[in-house]
Parts: sequence; structure tokens; C-alpha cells
Amino acid sequence: MEINLISDTITKPTYEMLQYMFNAQVGDDVYKQDPTVIELETRVAEFFGMEAGLFFPSGTMANQTAIKLHTQPGEQLIADKYAHVYHYEGGGASFNSGVSCCLIDGNRGMINAAQVAAAINDPEFYHSPLTSLVCVENTTNKGGGACYELEDLREIKKVCDDNNLKFHLDGARIWNALVAKRQNPKEFGAIFDTISVCLSKGLGAPIGSVLLGSKADIHRALRIRKILGGGMRQVGYLAAAGLYALAHNIERLAEDHRRAKEIAAVLSTKPWVAAIEPVETNILIFSLAEGYNDQLLIEKLKQKNISISSMGHNKLRIVTHLDYREVMHTYVIETLQKF
Amino acid sequence: MEINLISDTITKPTYEMLQYMFNAQVGDDVYKQDPTVIELETRVAEFFGMEAGLFFPSGTMANQTAIKLHTQPGEQLIADKYAHVYHYEGGGASFNSGVSCCLIDGNRGMINAAQVAAAINDPEFYHSPLTSLVCVENTTNKGGGACYELEDLREIKKVCDDNNLKFHLDGARIWNALVAKRQNPKEFGAIFDTISVCLSKGLGAPIGSVLLGSKADIHRALRIRKILGGGMRQVGYLAAAGLYALAHNIERLAEDHRRAKEIAAVLSTKPWVAAIEPVETNILIFSLAEGYNDQLLIEKLKQKNISISSMGHNKLRIVTHLDYREVMHTYVIETLQKF
Amino acid sequence: MEINLISDTITKPTYEMLQYMFNAQVGDDVYKQDPTVIELETRVAEFFGMEAGLFFPSGTMANQTAIKLHTQPGEQLIADKYAHVYHYEGGGASFNSGVSCCLIDGNRGMINAAQVAAAINDPEFYHSPLTSLVCVENTTNKGGGACYELEDLREIKKVCDDNNLKFHLDGARIWNALVAKRQNPKEFGAIFDTISVCLSKGLGAPIGSVLLGSKADIHRALRIRKILGGGMRQVGYLAAAGLYALAHNIERLAEDHRRAKEIAAVLSTKPWVAAIEPVETNILIFSLAEGYNDQLLIEKLKQKNISISSMGHNKLRIVTHLDYREVMHTYVIETLQKF
Amino acid sequence: MEINLISDTITKPTYEMLQYMFNAQVGDDVYKQDPTVIELETRVAEFFGMEAGLFFPSGTMANQTAIKLHTQPGEQLIADKYAHVYHYEGGGASFNSGVSCCLIDGNRGMINAAQVAAAINDPEFYHSPLTSLVCVENTTNKGGGACYELEDLREIKKVCDDNNLKFHLDGARIWNALVAKRQNPKEFGAIFDTISVCLSKGLGAPIGSVLLGSKADIHRALRIRKILGGGMRQVGYLAAAGLYALAHNIERLAEDHRRAKEIAAVLSTKPWVAAIEPVETNILIFSLAEGYNDQLLIEKLKQKNISISSMGHNKLRIVTHLDYREVMHTYVIETLQKF
Repeated sequence: MEINLISDTITKPTYEMLQYMFNAQVGDDVYKQDPTVIELETRVAEFFGMEAGLFFPSGTMANQTAIKLHTQPGEQLIADKYAHVYHYEGGGASFNSGVSCCLIDGNRGMINAAQVAAAINDPEFYHSPLTSLVCVENTTNKGGGACYELEDLREIKKVCDDNNLKFHLDGARIWNALVAKRQNPKEFGAIFDTISVCLSKGLGAPIGSVLLGSKADIHRALRIRKILGGGMRQVGYLAAAGLYALAHNIERLAEDHRRAKEIAAVLSTKPWVAAIEPVETNILIFSLAEGYNDQLLIEKLKQKNISISSMGHNKLRIVTHLDYREVMHTYVIETLQKF
Repeated sequence: MEINLISDTITKPTYEMLQYMFNAQVGDDVYKQDPTVIELETRVAEFFGMEAGLFFPSGTMANQTAIKLHTQPGEQLIADKYAHVYHYEGGGASFNSGVSCCLIDGNRGMINAAQVAAAINDPEFYHSPLTSLVCVENTTNKGGGACYELEDLREIKKVCDDNNLKFHLDGARIWNALVAKRQNPKEFGAIFDTISVCLSKGLGAPIGSVLLGSKADIHRALRIRKILGGGMRQVGYLAAAGLYALAHNIERLAEDHRRAKEIAAVLSTKPWVAAIEPVETNILIFSLAEGYNDQLLIEKLKQKNISISSMGHNKLRIVTHLDYREVMHTYVIETLQKF
Repeated sequence: MEINLISDTITKPTYEMLQYMFNAQVGDDVYKQDPTVIELETRVAEFFGMEAGLFFPSGTMANQTAIKLHTQPGEQLIADKYAHVYHYEGGGASFNSGVSCCLIDGNRGMINAAQVAAAINDPEFYHSPLTSLVCVENTTNKGGGACYELEDLREIKKVCDDNNLKFHLDGARIWNALVAKRQNPKEFGAIFDTISVCLSKGLGAPIGSVLLGSKADIHRALRIRKILGGGMRQVGYLAAAGLYALAHNIERLAEDHRRAKEIAAVLSTKPWVAAIEPVETNILIFSLAEGYNDQLLIEKLKQKNISISSMGHNKLRIVTHLDYREVMHTYVIETLQKF
Repeated sequence: MEINLISDTITKPTYEMLQYMFNAQVGDDVYKQDPTVIELETRVAEFFGMEAGLFFPSGTMANQTAIKLHTQPGEQLIADKYAHVYHYEGGGASFNSGVSCCLIDGNRGMINAAQVAAAINDPEFYHSPLTSLVCVENTTNKGGGACYELEDLREIKKVCDDNNLKFHLDGARIWNALVAKRQNPKEFGAIFDTISVCLSKGLGAPIGSVLLGSKADIHRALRIRKILGGGMRQVGYLAAAGLYALAHNIERLAEDHRRAKEIAAVLSTKPWVAAIEPVETNILIFSLAEGYNDQLLIEKLKQKNISISSMGHNKLRIVTHLDYREVMHTYVIETLQKF
């Protein structure tokens, strides 16, 4: 029994999901003739109360398209210092959109309205980049799965409105936030100009993200997706997986959260653990006490068939997910207790 | 019976292909852990005798990545005036790579060595863009499925070598050329720096292209694919379709070619047809005689359940493909004969 | 006596112009505190009846800024196949703005409304770049100093308006057109969204161009100029040269035109001249008869202290200018007559 | 008597410098035929012991060209959080080069080797931008004119060499560092791949920067300068000002430094001054004690004909320069003493 706690991106479709994919009605989505893709796009948009959606081969492309939609070359976006759009999209904000990032020293990947307000460049001072976009991540990836309060997002939105900024949500793990905080997805739709959601992390679909926004923005996004090379043909097979996941895999995220918290509870009793960041969803970040080495711990767990990953600086990350089942969890808990 | 002769991109997987897809072994290809993807990339590379391959969600992204690999912003590529990279990739050469196109007035989409040589800017004259890449398409799309002689490509390669230019093949329909001209794919691999091939046109897979090149170039291409947002997770399901197509659908392209020629033969007897471009593969382009209108013809054929497309300027295009079966062909031939 | 007929960019300031420069009031133009620059910008804008102007270190930067003002990355501009913005700005349209060029096979560098209309991509067909800008050059450089009729420009403007395109004039040598055609500069101001004019060609200032447009566009242009690195400090010395040139050197362009025509008249009697393009302003392009070699002619004239340049394909170019005085002209005419 | 202590960019040429400028021999520098420009480029290169130099209309363009020389789109540069290339070049690093900035929390604008080493992304981890360049500023602008020790720069250089990074010096005020630290300019030439130096700040020329580097890099820089629109015609008049400044205005920077320190000495006695950053050159940054307001102080000094500027957060900046003469200094000292 191999137990992979490195990321929730590694899940594989269940037999039922595969069956559902296999039976999908497809068409040429480049001509927007794939009914399953259209159904997915429509359903996700409705779920968040937004006008329109567009399927993407990756969350990176969905985020990059959003950045391009909302900015012009030379402009600047504001994000937390841990932001995925800055760290893990290959430098795409600069490559694809010619924009720079003004990074804020937030709290576990979350920024607040006052920080955003202070980070905006004076639009008349043309020596500095024009600030035009704020991006937040919810839940935060590098911030350990932390979730925003809706009220905090609304305050940031107010700053955006007052300063003519667009507001994008990188919602790769928004499903986890919705479940953990019992929030209404339509509240998010009402706050943001665009939202990207991922079908292949917590939801367990093999591939795919959806970008949500106004009809006008999504119409423009179609052209950007084409330019980046994200226009695919009979992609309904992948969209079907997303539809299946939406119907079956959201509520069960609570399981992932419970398991992450139970692991944290065990770790909190260990002398070799210096600190554990608050566990709100399915990501658990902890640091080792002085004298302990992250690579060594990874190695020792690996010998027990448990894979976890380092974040550098003696910090480690554990991510629970759909393929991490109760039997595995029991084993992990027992193994850690004995460590 | 709806007959779609608009494009060979509209084919849908057969039952057997679907079976093969959904039995695939998959992994997280972003970490390069999907065995089916690796098998496809390896097999296509070997087929053309090239070092390495990389799977892409679209031919546009494969071509755009090749252009980025071989150029720097501000530089110029040379291509035929009909080139897909100039016309149908959303302006991506400029958007993604910052390069301009020097277009050559070729023969049915094919250019020759003398034309390339004449189109190269003096590298010391820094007012003009530096020429750094030549792109050819084989078969040509807008050129009506025309295929190059290997010798003509070798002459262009010589000009490239003499002038320090890279040479890329947009091989979206290279399979048709191989079958029509009985050429050895390894001869192509020996000529080009990079080749993009498409699995979802003549070969009938739902999605996917592969970019081929040296190990070093493909290593760099991985980073570019990531930036453009083409990194996908459990994408082995799509790669499996490609593997199936490679094994079963190449030789049968001869059927598509025969049918296209048979349609051309019928059209050549019609007074309302002014000219038919030579039919070498599965694309047939013809123009209407004075007094006849392309939209009207499309409409009339549509009433007979046959869809074809206009290229403007009273030119029309017919494309045969895997889903255009003999029974349909018989009907089309009969219908046209009566027109 | 060295006679340089290669370009009108090589002129040097007269003693009077230098005195005027020397006595200029200057300030820090990066803070828009240089009164001489502001005077020049205002005066040129008024001359063309446009709202505002901005000084640039080069015509290339003024044109590149205009292209950036009017386009987004991935879009396409329409221009003549000889266009300076395509050939001689280092590939800047793609580098700085990410736009591609759709080149028209015009008449001596001039395009017409029907050609523009035919070159516009369908804005709903998102596979092709969105057309957003038309650029014309007046007088044409590579087209041999040809000048547009105002009516022809108004017809192109109509096509632009009907298709939501912006319209830019590369007026590097607009002064020559104004003098040759006795046109009112305000007529140009009424047609175009932006106009770039050059102070260092026919007008004889050492450096500088001015971009004209609406207040809003010029406000945005200030930011683009900064990004490209065109913000300069006490640049009033250069602006002063422009002011002097405007006051003293426009009408005298008629001299340059007369001389160019007189040289053409001599060339037209020569058996080694195959053809001479119509001479409308200060540029004269002619081709050699079969059996004659352009490099040889250049060499022989060089021995007589006369420098002219080749355009390739056995075509040669002669450009008259402020530093080509009557005594030189007499000598050139006599020399050519004896050739 | 108006006293401007806002910036050293506002200086105007002396009568002698103007005489020297307007007696310059000039040519068309776009064809590299301006002897005065060539003399300046050669002399500055020799001064720093570098192979070649290129004149630019602004320091921004010189820095932007260096960034473009050393990076590819999508890559990342490392700089201090106060860096001019990040804050005050209009977002040009992203616009012109498509690169992002990894900002380091340095000491008064200066970074060290350990910080650089920690900021480099793993080149094999292709999700993050590839780090390819380190930029330092000397003296630091926003850091208050702080100067590096050569040894600290050599240590950073070592990290660059070990990690295949290029190393650029934004030497807009390098002259101040050379004078303040009695350093040998050739030591800088030996450390950096490229150096930009400014002629229009401390040196008092009206316009111009020079980029220094290897012959190969400067050859490539010529093309980039053209693309950005920095190719100018008879620019020898401006280059002459630079030559004059090099010959006459370097050593006198010691005066500016003395005066800045004398102002600091007065400020240090004032209860309304909370802190003064160490004064090493001609920039003095101080913060106000609680209860005091920066805008109010600026206003009050303005009433005494003394202009200084705010940096926000109750911090103020004073910059001494060539046009701030002893009589003004005496007045400023007296005025501040009475405040």
C-alpha cells in the first residue's frame, strides 16, 4: 500500500467516473459544439452565480487567461507573497501578460484590504507600473490551506472598486473552502470579476479547470485560450469527469479535512515537531524542531510507504485527498504515533 | 445521415479507441509520471527518428512552443502566405514569442529554397528584424493538402544551415503526406529541428499533438508548455487514444485520399466548377465559375445533409476523414453527379 | 566637396539653428518642466489641429508608441508591404506590442480603402488575429516619396470607422507632402487618430519626432514613452531645433523637390536607366537597365564624391535635402549628364 | 533664489558645457557616424576597463536594454526591494523583457551574496521562473545613496558565476560611489557583465546614459536600442556634454557629499527629526518624529524657497547636486538651524 500525501493532484478517476467519461456525448469544442463541455461550463457558472464559464486544460492557463483579461503589458497585479500565480506558473504573468507582481507579506497566504490599499501605485505617477488587478487564492496553497472570511474579501473588493482594480480568485481549492466554512458559492460569484476553479485536485477529475466571469470577459477569454493553445477538440470526455466530480465529490472533502486535522493532532504531540500551522482544510504544514532534518524524515516515512514533501527551510507539507482512504489514514496515524 | 466534410478535426473516437483510452494506465504528467504519455512521446519520436517528444493539448500550442524555442522577441520567421502559424493561431507568434512573419507567395502553400534565401534579412542590418526560423506545413492546409518532395525540403534545410536558421515542420497532417508519397518518416526527422504532429485530425484521436525535437529542445519545451498552461495531470487517457490511432489509423488515410480524388473527378465534369486544385491527399479546394455563389452552393448541399465550407473568394473546401465512410461517400458522389 | 544623397537624415544644424538651440530655456522634461519642449509639442499639435503632442527621441519610438496605444498583444495592423513600421523598426511591432502585420501590395507604398477592407479579419473568427489598426506612410519612404490624396485617406478612414479600427499616420516626411500637394495640415489632423512627424529629416533638426493625438492618447503615450526609455531630462535644446526648423525649413522643401525632379530628368535620358519612379517629393528611385550593376554605379559616383544608395534588385535611391545645396546640385547634374 | 533639493536630475548645463556641446563634431549616429558619440562611448568604456559602450537617451533605456540582453521572457531577475528597475522604470522589465523580479529585503537598497543565493530558483523545477540575472544599484537611490564595498560585490559575483547568472550594475550614481569610497572604476568593470552610467545626474549633463559591456553584448544592444526607439541622429551634441562632464564634474561630487553631511548634522539636532539614514553620498533620507507631518514641512520649506520631496511614510529626501552652490548651502543650513 503506497500512500501519497504529496499533493491532491495525483488522484485517479474511480471506475464510476471513468464510466461516466466513457459515455459522454462529445463534439468539436474548438467550434463550441461539444455538448458535455457546454454543460460543464454552464453548471459551474450557475453554481457560483456567474454569467459564463470556459473549460481549460490547466489551472495555470485559467489563471493566466484571467490575468491577461484584466491587465495590459507593463501593469502590476497585487498578490500574497506565496501566490501560485507568482511562484508556480513559470513566470507566466510576465511572459504571457507582461505584468509584474507586487507581493504582500500576508497571513498564511491571505492578504487584507489595508495591505492592498497600501500597495497600489499612484496612477498619475507614470514612472511606476499602473496597478490594475488583485489576485487572491482560496484556499491558499503555500499558506497551508487557509480560507478567507467572506467579509475580508468584500473589504478587498471595496478597495478594488475605489481604485479601478479588477479582482480575481484563484479558486483551485475553493471547494475545500466552501465545505470547511459552509459558505455559499454565489457569495463568491458576487465578489469577483473572475474565478478559476480546478476539477483535478480535491474533486478528483483527471484534468481541467473552469474560468468563470461575465459573458463579455469569457467571450474574450476564448480568444486568449486559443492563442495560448488551449483550444481542444472532443474534450467532452474530460468535461464529463468534471460533471461527475461536481455531483459526487464536493461534500466528501470534509473527510479530507478531518483526516488532516487528525494527523495534526498526532504531530502536535511529537517533540520533533516545532510548530504546526492551523489546519483548516486538507493541507497541513509543520516545521521540525532544531536538530531534526526534513529530508531525513521524508526518507524514513518513505520506508513506511508514506510520501510527503518538503517546502524547504525545514518545513514539510501533507495533503489529504480522494485517493487517501480511511484504511490508509488509520495506518498513517498509527505509524506517526509510533515515530 | 449527416455528412460533415468541413474538417477532419470533427472525428469522434470509435468504440475500440474509447475502450483503449479508458483502460490506460495514468499518472500525474505534470510530474512526468504518466506511463501512457511517456509511451506515446517515445513512440512518436522513434517513428520519426527524433530524440524526444512532448504531448500537447493542441497543435497550436505545439507550433507556438516550437516558434518560442527557436526565436527571440523581435526576430522574424519565414513561412508561406497560407501558413497556419500566421493565419489560424490567433496571432500567437507575435503574442507568445514577439516575432513577426515574412510571408512568401508559394505554390499551394509550399515554398522553395530560392524563395527562402531571398526572404532572409541581412543579419548585420539591425534596422530590420533578424531572421531566425523557417516554418513549413506538410501537408498544407489552406494550400489544399499539397505535399512536399523530400528533396525540396532538403534544399530549404541547406539554406537554413547556411544562414543559421532553425527549421520547423508543422506536421498537423504529416501522416497524409507519408501515406500519399510513400515517404519514410525518419527522413523528415533528419531534416527538421522540430516537428509537430497532430493526433486529432486524420488519425482520429479526440485531442492532442506531439512536438518532436532534440532532447535539449524538448527539455526547454517542457518549461514553455508549463508557462502557456499546457501541463495536464492524468492525461494518459488522451495519450492512449493517440497510441491506438498510431497503430490503426495511418494506412487507412489512403481511403480518405481516394475519396477526395473521386469527388474531384465528379466536380471536374461540372460547368459550375471553374477550377479544382490538384488533389494529393484528403483536402479538395475548388472555385466556382462566374455567376455561381459559394454560399448558395453550401446552402443547397446542406439541404442534402452535406456540409462543406467556404474559403472566401468563391473558393470552397472539402475534407475527407475517418468518420466519412464508404456509404456516405457513395451518397455524396451520387448527389454531386446529379447537381 | 562631399555630396551625400543617401538620406535626408544626415543633415546637420546650421549656425542659426545651433544658436537658437544654445539659447533655449530648458527644464526637466521627465517632470514636464521644460518650457521649450512644451512649446514645440503645442505648436506642432496646433499646426495639425490636434489636441496634444509629445516629443520623442526617434520616429521609430513615436510610431511604436502609436502602435502600442491602438493595439493589444495578438492583434494585427494593416500596412503597405513597404511600410517602415514593418521593415525598419527592428521588428518592434511584435517586440513592443505583440502585434502582427497584414501587408498589402499597394502602389508605391500607398494602399487604398478597398484593399484595407479586404484585409480585415472577421472579428468573430477568433482563430485569426483581431484587426485593430491601419498605418499609412506619407510620403512613402520605400515607395519613393509618393504622396496620398486626402480623399483617398478619407476613404480609408471610413473603412476604419466602419470596422472599429484606429488609423495612424507615419508622417516622417509629411512636410514634403504638404509642400508638394499644397495640402492643409489640419486636414490630416482631422483624419487620423495619431500622427508621428519627424524633425530630423527634411526639416533639418538633429534629433526628434513628435507624436500627435487626442489628450487622452497622449497622456497614455507619456507612460509608454517612459517604459520604452524615451523620457529625457533637459531636452529643450533639441526641441528648440525643432521650433527653429518649423519656422524656417518647411517651405524650402520645394527646393529639394525641384532638384530631385531635375536629376530625374537627366536620368531619363540615359540608356543605362531602365525606369524611374514618378518623383513627387525629395526621393527618386530608379532601376538600371539589364547588364548594368548597381554596386558599380555607386562605386563610380563615389569616385566623383557623390554618394547614393542601393535598394537591392538593381534599384537605386537618391534623396535630396537641406544640406544638398545649389552648388552641389549643379555639380551632380553636370556629372550625371557626362555619365 | 530658488533652491531645488528634490533631485540631481534637474541640473542645467553651465555656459562652458553648452559651448562645448555646440562646437561638437556630429554625424548620423544611427549609421554610427557621429565621432563625438563614439569618443564618449570609447572613453567611458576605457574608464571602467570594459570593451565597449553605447549611448542611450535615458538610464531607463540603458537598464532595460541590459535586462533584455541577459534574460529571456518568463525568466526572473533578483534585485533589492528598492530597485529602480522594479519601481521606477514603468514596469519595463515585464513589458520589454517579460521578466519578473524577485525582490530582496536588503540593507538601504544593498543586497548580499547569501540573500542572492537564497533567492535563486532551482533551475530544474520548471514550475518556477528560471533565475538568470542579478541587478544591483550603486549608489542606491531609494536606499539613500548607500555604496557597496567592492568585496561584497565580488561575493555576489561569485554566486552569479556558480549559478550561471548575469550581473548588471545600475550605476546611475556610480560616480558618487567612486568619489565617496575612493574606488577604482576598473574594479567595477571587472565584476559586472554590464554597467549603466548616467551623465545627467551628478555629472550635470542634460541628457544621456551609457551602457558598458563586452563587444558582443554591446553589438546586440545596438539592435535592442533600435527596437526600443533609442537610435538618434546627430546626437553628438548630447555626447559632448557627457565628455565635458567626465572631464570636469567627477571630483567635485565630493562637495555635494560634504553638503549633504552638513545638512544631516543640522537635522540631527532637531527634535522633529526621528532618524537620519547614514549619509554616504549626495542623498539624505530622514524621517519625522511622531506628530510631525511631511507635507507640512515641505510646505514650510517651500515658503523659504527650498524644495525637498517626500518618500511617503513620513520620510523625506534631500539631494545635493551641481546646481546647489555654496551660497545656497549656507542659506539652507541657516534656515534649518532656525527651524
